[in-house]
Amino acid sequence: MKQFINTKETLVAEAIDGTLRTAGGRLARLDGYPHIKVVVRTDWDKSKVALVSGGGSGHEPSHAGFVGQGMLTAAVCGEVFASPSVDAVLAGILAVTGKAGCLLIVKNYTGDRLNFGLAAERARAQGLKVSMVIVDDDVALPDLPQARGVAGTLFVHKIAGALAEQGADLDTVTAAAQRVIKGVSSIGMSLDTCTIPGAPKEDRIGPGKAELGLGIHGEAGVDQVDFSTARGAMEMVVDRLAPNVGPGPHVALLNNLGGATPLEMAVLAEELIKSRIGEQIRWMIGPAPMMTSLDMQGFSVSLLPVTKADEAALLAPVAPWAWPDCHAVGDVSIMALPDGLTPIKPTPSKNPEARAFIERCCNILIEAEADLNALDAKSGDGDTGSTLATAARALIGALDALPLADHTQLYRAIGLELSQTMGGSSGVLLAIFFAAAGDASASGKDAIGALKAGLGRVQQVGGAGPGDRTMIDALAPALDALPSGLAASARAAREGADATANITRARAGRASYLSESSLAGHNDPGAEAVARLFERISEAG
Amino acid sequence: MKQFINTKETLVAEAIDGTLRTAGGRLARLDGYPHIKVVVRTDWDKSKVALVSGGGSGHEPSHAGFVGQGMLTAAVCGEVFASPSVDAVLAGILAVTGKAGCLLIVKNYTGDRLNFGLAAERARAQGLKVSMVIVDDDVALPDLPQARGVAGTLFVHKIAGALAEQGADLDTVTAAAQRVIKGVSSIGMSLDTCTIPGAPKEDRIGPGKAELGLGIHGEAGVDQVDFSTARGAMEMVVDRLAPNVGPGPHVALLNNLGGATPLEMAVLAEELIKSRIGEQIRWMIGPAPMMTSLDMQGFSVSLLPVTKADEAALLAPVAPWAWPDCHAVGDVSIMALPDGLTPIKPTPSKNPEARAFIERCCNILIEAEADLNALDAKSGDGDTGSTLATAARALIGALDALPLADHTQLYRAIGLELSQTMGGSSGVLLAIFFAAAGDASASGKDAIGALKAGLGRVQQVGGAGPGDRTMIDALAPALDALPSGLAASARAAREGADATANITRARAGRASYLSESSLAGHNDPGAEAVARLFERISEAG
Repeated sequence: MKQFINTKETLVAEAIDGTLRTAGGRLARLDGYPHIKVVVRTDWDKSKVALVSGGGSGHEPSHAGFVGQGMLTAAVCGEVFASPSVDAVLAGILAVTGKAGCLLIVKNYTGDRLNFGLAAERARAQGLKVSMVIVDDDVALPDLPQARGVAGTLFVHKIAGALAEQGADLDTVTAAAQRVIKGVSSIGMSLDTCTIPGAPKEDRIGPGKAELGLGIHGEAGVDQVDFSTARGAMEMVVDRLAPNVGPGPHVALLNNLGGATPLEMAVLAEELIKSRIGEQIRWMIGPAPMMTSLDMQGFSVSLLPVTKADEAALLAPVAPWAWPDCHAVGDVSIMALPDGLTPIKPTPSKNPEARAFIERCCNILIEAEADLNALDAKSGDGDTGSTLATAARALIGALDALPLADHTQLYRAIGLELSQTMGGSSGVLLAIFFAAAGDASASGKDAIGALKAGLGRVQQVGGAGPGDRTMIDALAPALDALPSGLAASARAAREGADATANITRARAGRASYLSESSLAGHNDPGAEAVARLFERISEAG
Repeated sequence: MKQFINTKETLVAEAIDGTLRTAGGRLARLDGYPHIKVVVRTDWDKSKVALVSGGGSGHEPSHAGFVGQGMLTAAVCGEVFASPSVDAVLAGILAVTGKAGCLLIVKNYTGDRLNFGLAAERARAQGLKVSMVIVDDDVALPDLPQARGVAGTLFVHKIAGALAEQGADLDTVTAAAQRVIKGVSSIGMSLDTCTIPGAPKEDRIGPGKAELGLGIHGEAGVDQVDFSTARGAMEMVVDRLAPNVGPGPHVALLNNLGGATPLEMAVLAEELIKSRIGEQIRWMIGPAPMMTSLDMQGFSVSLLPVTKADEAALLAPVAPWAWPDCHAVGDVSIMALPDGLTPIKPTPSKNPEARAFIERCCNILIEAEADLNALDAKSGDGDTGSTLATAARALIGALDALPLADHTQLYRAIGLELSQTMGGSSGVLLAIFFAAAGDASASGKDAIGALKAGLGRVQQVGGAGPGDRTMIDALAPALDALPSGLAASARAAREGADATANITRARAGRASYLSESSLAGHNDPGAEAVARLFERISEAG
């Protein structure tokens, strides 16, 4: 399997260093690479109870990501899914433990229990006060006497961490940790196993299946179940948790096991809150990756009944960024849609001159339909003429409803009409052209200024400029020349349109996907349409 | 492909609701489902410049995750990888824009440009001040006139957001956004494509290959390159970025495209800082998922030259949790290993009585070697006797170096000796037993109290109790009976050991993995060893 690592032997050490680069000096590691990989707080004076946790790596941000004010004092990191050694744990304890003592928070795996346990004894032999708690929150196997420790461990880190930060003594912190451990229940579900660096990927979970109650090292789940929807998945998880849920308010920790997307996790949050135990969930931590299993596409839910004191401890601010905060669960706030979404129909008004001008323009485009289609067919799908002609016919049909006597409103109304009758990008761009012209007109610009404002906006939104083989190549010079009269403007448009025949590298729009040879020697149909329009108007005028 | 969703049609809406459940009322959505999916700040009085962004979904936490104080005012969310409609964008603009106006931050994709562009025109037609900037930070295709907008967009959100929060006017905020867009360069690399809900997974990137410069919608990269290590991958990314890096300090944004693990991302951070442009990277945002592409196992790097003013804007606190903060880049802080890792060798001392007692115990275990091996072979690998005998021989050999005259130090020294000479869990557990006994002895306990303290710790660390078919079943009753004399103690140990023959469901240790039939009818070898020890001592005494 491909992974962004250098070697599996250096992976954890390099990752710790990468993390510490941006810790701003608040975190350090002990000088014990490669065997001793311990991350410690540097802003720590040993006057309070130290919290030391850790275990195998591959569960990031656990545990190094939770070292900092209000949570862990040190994290002892083993290799991926392997317990750290007694020496490494002892180094962590000795580095941070003062007179107030130290609490070891250990997940219930034999290797961790033994290595942390013996390190604790060695530290005690040196006169340090060390207590140790074993987290066994996984309810996947209800009859298993040795339940595993999974994401519920985070509750222990946070609640014990808040008490330690407040200056509680070791007995108080330990008792709180034990109370949390007694109360917490967790279970996980995954759609796939994790990819262990340097090992082949296990394809244990087949199509249409999920594993319920699998471990955070990819240990097989207690059940393979049929998977169809997020709702069904959450129902199965809730079924396993519900027997452990007593009355009263709970806090839920929704953990991403690594490979579920934020979209999936957010849907699962919604399903958890809408589930049959949702009423009891007053607080939620996450969804976020907290106790991951490398890249496992799964999640876990941990539940803890909470007292007011627990709430305060869970809400206390902490330094580690990886802690996603504890949030009150509530209804979705919904705001009414704002007024103004439905455009107000302008009051129709009469202006024979404007009406005649628009009709003339529209008819010029309708007459050009076949020619423009033929031109477009040389390098495109041959519909430019029809697109413009259709819009022109619709506009003629709408003339009675237009505010012909009010230039500003007229521009906007034409824009609205075009956005509704023309499909695709060109429709939106022409709508933007006229809407921006109306906007400029409203702010006092004359017709030329308004049209130039429209062109400027189309260039900004469409991303094309002169020389990009679009209608802009004819329209921009035409508008520039307009102060010198319609004839000059028509000549400029024609020159610009004809020049597009030599532009074989389109930089924007559909033509940018075409080869040079298919573009050479004929005009861009949009530019040609503009040139025709100005030429015919000029002739008629 | 399996994903934790209900239907792809409801995915984005459900995910938004799931997110808003825990927003504590600070965020709301507009009442426009399913077509209008807009997340807005509720703590917003329209007195400052509003920042509206958005686009297709699938890039979470972009953009809804960045709505809040100091960043976006509203996020307009399309379906996965599809631009939101003009109406949706207009609704977002109208909901949050007051007299100070609104800046639209749009990534450079045709659909987004057109829909945001036309919505802006409609909003302007209603008299609102709206400006729009187009982010085009992707340098994957250096000759492409229309560079895509990718994760560098976050710099715009943050810097423009900080200025807007401070009360800067629309022109100032817009100019700052444009300056950031001009300065930022980004490029991405991935080992796999993303999984689009409801679509088959594309297997475009083969074994040993990576794609450099692919888009955030899974668009094919400019190059497929050979992939071997994180270092090589980062070098290729840096090669593409370096031509855009001028002199002076830069900030790097290291974005997880979705499916890279925190371990991989941390290694990549280390490689970026150690790269040839690392010296210029003074600040880093991430590594974190910020502009993802669903579950894509890839990353992107965005670089921005920074002024003092930019630094201040990037460091300004914000409400959205998804913002991973901007951190100064520095050396890895390394602390010296603590003293006390190497146990101090106790001063040897003489005590003929203790020496004789230890020798007698050791010889009892050595004599029992064959019997215990035979017993273990009935349900295990037949080495319990040899393991204990080997440790006993080593202990006899170490007698001259032991502090025989000091009970406390003697317990500890035996523990240390056993932890170094016995392998596996049983060695660690016996080491813990004697270390804890020494600890208790130091605090004034007599021999029985010390041994009971040892047993208590073994139970806590090992997780086994009486009835679990371990040595505890003999040791616990033996210690309980010890005040009545050695003979009583030996009888209790024997009774306990014999009772293990009826325990067919082991709850801890190796035997917990064995079937009932393989355990029935014979004693646990550990318990038998303890019984033999007490019996022989009692006989000799």
